[in-house]
Amino acid sequence: MINFRVIARVLGLLVTMLGVLSSLPIFVSLYYDEGCVAPLLWSTLIMLASGFILWKFIGIRIANSTLRKQEGFLIVTLGWVLMSAFGTLPYLMSGAIPDFTDAFFETMSGFTTTGASILTDIEALDHGLLFWRSMTQWIGGMGIIVMTIAILPILGIGGMELFLAEAPGPTSDKLHPRIKETAKRLWLIYAALTALLTLLLGFGEMGWFDAVNHGMTTMATGGFSTRQDSIAYFQTPYTQYIIVFFMFLAGTNYTLIYFTLTGKVKKMWQNEEFRTYFLVTALLALIIFVAIYLVTNCGPEGAERAFRDSLFQVVSIITTTGFVSADYTAWAPAITVVFFLMLFLGASAGSTSGGVKIIRHLTMAKNCILEFRRVLHPRAIIPVKLNGRIVLPTIVTNVLVFILIYMLIFAVSSVIMAAMGLDFETAIGAVATALSNVGPGIGKVGPVDNFSAIPEVGKWFLSFLMLVGRLELFTVLVLFTRYFWRMN
Amino acid sequence: MINFRVIARVLGLLVTMLGVLSSLPIFVSLYYDEGCVAPLLWSTLIMLASGFILWKFIGIRIANSTLRKQEGFLIVTLGWVLMSAFGTLPYLMSGAIPDFTDAFFETMSGFTTTGASILTDIEALDHGLLFWRSMTQWIGGMGIIVMTIAILPILGIGGMELFLAEAPGPTSDKLHPRIKETAKRLWLIYAALTALLTLLLGFGEMGWFDAVNHGMTTMATGGFSTRQDSIAYFQTPYTQYIIVFFMFLAGTNYTLIYFTLTGKVKKMWQNEEFRTYFLVTALLALIIFVAIYLVTNCGPEGAERAFRDSLFQVVSIITTTGFVSADYTAWAPAITVVFFLMLFLGASAGSTSGGVKIIRHLTMAKNCILEFRRVLHPRAIIPVKLNGRIVLPTIVTNVLVFILIYMLIFAVSSVIMAAMGLDFETAIGAVATALSNVGPGIGKVGPVDNFSAIPEVGKWFLSFLMLVGRLELFTVLVLFTRYFWRMN
Repeated sequence: MINFRVIARVLGLLVTMLGVLSSLPIFVSLYYDEGCVAPLLWSTLIMLASGFILWKFIGIRIANSTLRKQEGFLIVTLGWVLMSAFGTLPYLMSGAIPDFTDAFFETMSGFTTTGASILTDIEALDHGLLFWRSMTQWIGGMGIIVMTIAILPILGIGGMELFLAEAPGPTSDKLHPRIKETAKRLWLIYAALTALLTLLLGFGEMGWFDAVNHGMTTMATGGFSTRQDSIAYFQTPYTQYIIVFFMFLAGTNYTLIYFTLTGKVKKMWQNEEFRTYFLVTALLALIIFVAIYLVTNCGPEGAERAFRDSLFQVVSIITTTGFVSADYTAWAPAITVVFFLMLFLGASAGSTSGGVKIIRHLTMAKNCILEFRRVLHPRAIIPVKLNGRIVLPTIVTNVLVFILIYMLIFAVSSVIMAAMGLDFETAIGAVATALSNVGPGIGKVGPVDNFSAIPEVGKWFLSFLMLVGRLELFTVLVLFTRYFWRMN
Repeated sequence: MINFRVIARVLGLLVTMLGVLSSLPIFVSLYYDEGCVAPLLWSTLIMLASGFILWKFIGIRIANSTLRKQEGFLIVTLGWVLMSAFGTLPYLMSGAIPDFTDAFFETMSGFTTTGASILTDIEALDHGLLFWRSMTQWIGGMGIIVMTIAILPILGIGGMELFLAEAPGPTSDKLHPRIKETAKRLWLIYAALTALLTLLLGFGEMGWFDAVNHGMTTMATGGFSTRQDSIAYFQTPYTQYIIVFFMFLAGTNYTLIYFTLTGKVKKMWQNEEFRTYFLVTALLALIIFVAIYLVTNCGPEGAERAFRDSLFQVVSIITTTGFVSADYTAWAPAITVVFFLMLFLGASAGSTSGGVKIIRHLTMAKNCILEFRRVLHPRAIIPVKLNGRIVLPTIVTNVLVFILIYMLIFAVSSVIMAAMGLDFETAIGAVATALSNVGPGIGKVGPVDNFSAIPEVGKWFLSFLMLVGRLELFTVLVLFTRYFWRMN
């Protein structure tokens, strides 16, 4: 039997913590002397009160301190949904986003670090609200780190064992025996990198407010900007290259960053996923650069710009950040197709990036190539190896199934979105970008567009897809199977 | 060491046989008193001479009468290529298709039973050439039957063991112990069904020439028509429903048809792939019917037409025939998306249809659903079952890899086609329809268009995709791996 009061306790704690964090934008609004101080204060109070009631009055403490697997799944999924529901309060109470559907979409896009927005004039928002908007992504990023380190491996989701510190398998270098301690250290890295990026951005053309916000949304691979034109608003090479570097870092396995910081620098390049991540990004940036250079006929004087644009957009999409420095759908149809396909890549497992992720693609690619050997030598047992170690066949199957379910969800969802009247490209673009938590897509939800024109039911559906993608499919989808509810 | 002279012998025999068959259109041209008699005669003579030289002078007989696996792969792939090269002769020598690229595309489209055409005025062709065009598909269909029954299982391709009579596994009812005998019986069914269909069509609005041609291209799930408007030219419900029924039959596993004809009628419905094939087709036809009914606002008086159009197009695409009775891209964007996705379905294994095929989708779907159970019960071993029997994990992996490679080829090829200047929809439509051997796609290669405007290099690339798809991916692709050439 699932103990819902145990679940309520954890969720209550989460909402209470969210309430505490939601007090920060109040100070921002006070500093800028804005009208949204009162609504923000009310939002915080409602979150604190609701969270506290859920935590202390409805929830109960578990006796033997072990959660059941089913409760784990429910906590993760409902946690994200509840945070997104309560996270709408600042928008709703201030009237900045009066519609609940829009507010929920924007908040879910925040907590899932997607970055898709229904706002058509971002600069019109008060500083306090913009700060809250960026914070949702930063908090979401923290949630993902703890989820991937501590929760998903226990729940056995989609080959996440592959990169995991504690799990037996390819990269079993023990990061630290205690998960709680591990999470703390990674959070510290996350916070420190955010602070460093903020400083670096603040020394450039950005004001400090923009710097803090972009610091948070970059490290979360979120992609919310304080500017309607996103990073295209900040055209100095310094700012753009800094963001490129930190987006790439945010798409790196935090465990590897931790090892590097503690002096084990070699570990990073020894890691097959990181090497592939680096090489794929570099190769794609190079291809797109050459393509842009030829298509736009920019000449040698435009080469740096073309190089920067291609590098920025490739890194932005692969890391699933979704910042926009140039309209990647405006260059050529073939480039649009490549960017569309990039929506399915994703960066490293153990980072805040979404999507399928490199380690799964790598496992799949290796297995596909080996299958040719298996066809020629049907009696030989030919296992997949990663970082020099054999990957269990059950994990390989899990990875293949993950990717296939990803494609199935994409296909079915595209039909659903098209049935709402969206054209072909917009439908597949919106679905792919929501599922992979990127932000911009192609078609009418391209890099210079937004999601305001999507029908109401479409916004709900895309919010659902963001959640499904963010929680590595299985976590959410398992709740819709009879296996889950019949488990005892 | 690969013995190329052994390969040459088999290929020579194939070309000689093709030469013999190519004499039939000469009689058609004689009957209609057409100018292309001489070119057709020359074509036949060249084929016979070349084939005979290759067979008797270059080729040698194998001593111990066993082909090596590598030689098997090369014979199948080169056989299809060589047939397509020699099959261009009637078009080239008559001047009907003066360009070799176009002629090769048309012939490869024929022998792979795809049905994509570069012709812009089909009715302008002589009867002899139209007959040859239809014959390429019919011969291709024969080739596929013998390939799937006798060759692919020995080569161990993509889960083809799953449906196979001889192989151990789900449907291991022995059709007949001897492969040669089996192939003969299935060919007989193929020929008898073609004759029956021709008769039935001839009694309707079609003239006998149209009836014979459509009889051949329907049973081959090919889709070449003698009319520029395809089946839309023949608007009587009788003709269209007859074709629907025979397309569906042509997409059925021939082994099951054989069992039914020998009185074991139950076997068909007991077969899981057939049940799924039937239900998926019925469901999709129903959905599309309702959608068309609502979109076109046709009212009760237009209901039969809407039903017929939806049924016809769904069956035509799923069986990868590619006949067109109505423009499925003209109804609504969502319907276009559904038809695009249908390009990836395919009908039954052991039929002449192309694509991924239902049995692979079924295996994948079952495995995906079971993966949720595996996530919840990580220690349990939960196998996939088909027709009540366990499918070996290696076969399941092979099926998953097949589908993933299919998607990878589709993705990469779409970029390549887009790079040639095709727009997004046309690029993905052309690739999907070529790879799945359907015929019409979406975009500018939709049901009422043709492939004449595709750039020359694009036509070669699409011809390659038709071959890759027709030969179940591995057969062709394995030739590009170092495993193949280093095998000893």
